[in-house]
Amino acid sequence: MQKIYISDLKNFIGQEITLKGWLYNKRSSGKVKFIILRDGTGYLQCVYFKGSVTPEVFELCDKVTQESSIEVTGRVKEEPRAVGGFELDGVDLKIISLSQEYPITPKEHGIEFLMDNRHLWLRSSRQVAIMKVRHRIIKAIRDFFDNKGFVLMDSPILTPAACEGTSTLFETEYFDLGKAYLTQSGQLYAEAGALALGKVYTFGPTFRAEKSKTRRHLTEFWMVEPEVAFNDLNDNMDLIEEFIEYVVQTVIADREEELKVLERDLTSLKNCKRPFPRISYDDAVEILKKNNIDFQYGNDLGGTDETIISNQFDRPVLVHRYPQEVKAFYMKRDPENANLALAVDVLAPEGVGEIIGGSQREDNLDLLLERIKEHDLPQEAFEWYLDLRRYGSVPHAGFGLGLERTVGWICGLEHVRETIPFPRMIYRNTP
Amino acid sequence: MQKIYISDLKNFIGQEITLKGWLYNKRSSGKVKFIILRDGTGYLQCVYFKGSVTPEVFELCDKVTQESSIEVTGRVKEEPRAVGGFELDGVDLKIISLSQEYPITPKEHGIEFLMDNRHLWLRSSRQVAIMKVRHRIIKAIRDFFDNKGFVLMDSPILTPAACEGTSTLFETEYFDLGKAYLTQSGQLYAEAGALALGKVYTFGPTFRAEKSKTRRHLTEFWMVEPEVAFNDLNDNMDLIEEFIEYVVQTVIADREEELKVLERDLTSLKNCKRPFPRISYDDAVEILKKNNIDFQYGNDLGGTDETIISNQFDRPVLVHRYPQEVKAFYMKRDPENANLALAVDVLAPEGVGEIIGGSQREDNLDLLLERIKEHDLPQEAFEWYLDLRRYGSVPHAGFGLGLERTVGWICGLEHVRETIPFPRMIYRNTP
Repeated sequence: MQKIYISDLKNFIGQEITLKGWLYNKRSSGKVKFIILRDGTGYLQCVYFKGSVTPEVFELCDKVTQESSIEVTGRVKEEPRAVGGFELDGVDLKIISLSQEYPITPKEHGIEFLMDNRHLWLRSSRQVAIMKVRHRIIKAIRDFFDNKGFVLMDSPILTPAACEGTSTLFETEYFDLGKAYLTQSGQLYAEAGALALGKVYTFGPTFRAEKSKTRRHLTEFWMVEPEVAFNDLNDNMDLIEEFIEYVVQTVIADREEELKVLERDLTSLKNCKRPFPRISYDDAVEILKKNNIDFQYGNDLGGTDETIISNQFDRPVLVHRYPQEVKAFYMKRDPENANLALAVDVLAPEGVGEIIGGSQREDNLDLLLERIKEHDLPQEAFEWYLDLRRYGSVPHAGFGLGLERTVGWICGLEHVRETIPFPRMIYRNTP
Repeated sequence: MQKIYISDLKNFIGQEITLKGWLYNKRSSGKVKFIILRDGTGYLQCVYFKGSVTPEVFELCDKVTQESSIEVTGRVKEEPRAVGGFELDGVDLKIISLSQEYPITPKEHGIEFLMDNRHLWLRSSRQVAIMKVRHRIIKAIRDFFDNKGFVLMDSPILTPAACEGTSTLFETEYFDLGKAYLTQSGQLYAEAGALALGKVYTFGPTFRAEKSKTRRHLTEFWMVEPEVAFNDLNDNMDLIEEFIEYVVQTVIADREEELKVLERDLTSLKNCKRPFPRISYDDAVEILKKNNIDFQYGNDLGGTDETIISNQFDRPVLVHRYPQEVKAFYMKRDPENANLALAVDVLAPEGVGEIIGGSQREDNLDLLLERIKEHDLPQEAFEWYLDLRRYGSVPHAGFGLGLERTVGWICGLEHVRETIPFPRMIYRNTP
């Protein structure tokens, strides 16, 4: 027998069917009981009239508690006023497992309590909506690159050396080979992939053992990192713009219902269409000055700086050509000004801040060797990476998009902790 | 200017175009030079006639070396005898970066040498083909679940406790919270997801610090794990069959060219259609006996046993209802025989062995508590998991498919080390 889900109801109008799920909510009004069933695909109001059902069933409607697993039987009716547009004219009700004192009640709970009960909190309509938007964002990201002929090349999680600085690494013993480190970025591996397959992307979890306790930081987060042979900084920025537009427009069109649950105002997201403003770091510093911010030229942009800059624009802004001192060793210098790196960051509007970091990569062997020395990195660990400049070096560029910040942005969430099923933060690695 | 790739050539027949890539191979025949260009999307023979090009270009054809990055210009011709069906009538050739003594030559290299040079080895036509099949398998897996309304719920990598036994864990210090462990399976988290969203899957890297030095073991491998509320063992087996059929048939239809490069005989894969044979563990033991294998009833099936069993069938075989002692604590016991677990493993043909392990889960709180005690697991670490039986427990089932073994099977590879861009094994965590 085919299982029927709430999302299938339009095919069963007028028919008597049985559905399984959990009691999301209930209310009573004398001779009629209302039970809201949830099954993961949607919500359905089931109506039980005294007299129309057996006294036992009517009694069960009182007995059944929040988050009990239940089986409901009844006739499907169209009902425009009900959630989802349908209602079930209840005939039977069975309890599969009765919940006793479900910890999460409609009253307000503190965030630590909800996080301790994350495995149950995920059942709330708000968290369900976020997870569905997250899934759709991931699918849009993959579709975008797949449709453009990129090849997915998963980069390793266990790596022998640091990519983005050595101070924020999780380490583990690796048999007789000494220590291995959890990857901070798949980029270096993606570069090897791009020189083999032309256009590639990696998409997996990355790790930063950063002692940052902000609303923007997770210690474990997913990152998509495309890398393209023969792309320069401008090609990279073109790709970024097309990518962001595709992801945002696809997701808001296809997850309207969930974004409504999240009470997300879509005005700003709908506006997220090419061309995006592109400004240089120098332009960005000018903006800060005009806003009377005491900013030292040469420094990296901080969270507050990013907010001020992004507030000047009605869509994401690309900030390019940063001072090379604040950027990673692998970034190519601007041929017109060796103090600048051919980097680009994308700042999302509405105070979200950086969601993308990217650059054209240094493709000259001697210059890259110099950078590795300047950054005090162990050359030996990078020999394989240097090989990419020894054998068939080409201009190439790529970027990394942080998934959770993007989910937070599109869903309109204050804090990244709700953007991933089981968040990991400096003070939390459970449940 | 739009970049042109070899995969676009059909749109440029008769036109003079410029392509960028790497020299894959070359040969010479007196007054004509042949240069095989690769760009990640395909291969193209470029033909340079003496007299038709400048003496400088003709000389460059001699000078340019394997894996040099180059730019070729010429007219596109249809040529059915050439790789890919096209040829370039060369007009110009530029060297972007000349490779000196590329380490991987057409001669035979030892596997350790190739693994040390994995970042370059990935450029070979065989590795390119494997990566494209791998990508297509991943896409087929995601499409299958997405099209069926499953929600992707990424499970965490950093976990507070073991899921599949404590002896094979990678551990890391986690700030002030003590140790965290790299996940061995996302299943427990997927169960929480299934009770929130009905049908979910996790798909990410998993880790086993196993000291196994076999052709089937990686320490880091990707696993997809669907989990469905209200599914029992039979539903689970139905889902498995539909899933395997979809993935195999989609991939072999869509990656014919790559599988040809790998000289994969498709007979067995084409046969991979429902219904698949389903045998009990008891049946499997009978098969071993008939083949004069000295097998102790009650033991788990070993690699050789799996090969003998799977050799009896012309497609994957599902083996169900194993002795509970050899299976994980979370598996439900068979109501008809408490010594058996409602488990199912899938053995792939052609000596590949186990590619899927799954089961119906124990949904009774008291029985699950008993199992946790029997297995000497710390109950406290599983309190959240026990909550799934306290609040709205339902029958549910799921399975895990190992990606790399599946890639090895479909590509017809002897060893899993070629199935992932950068393999991690007990004796290797580089490059």
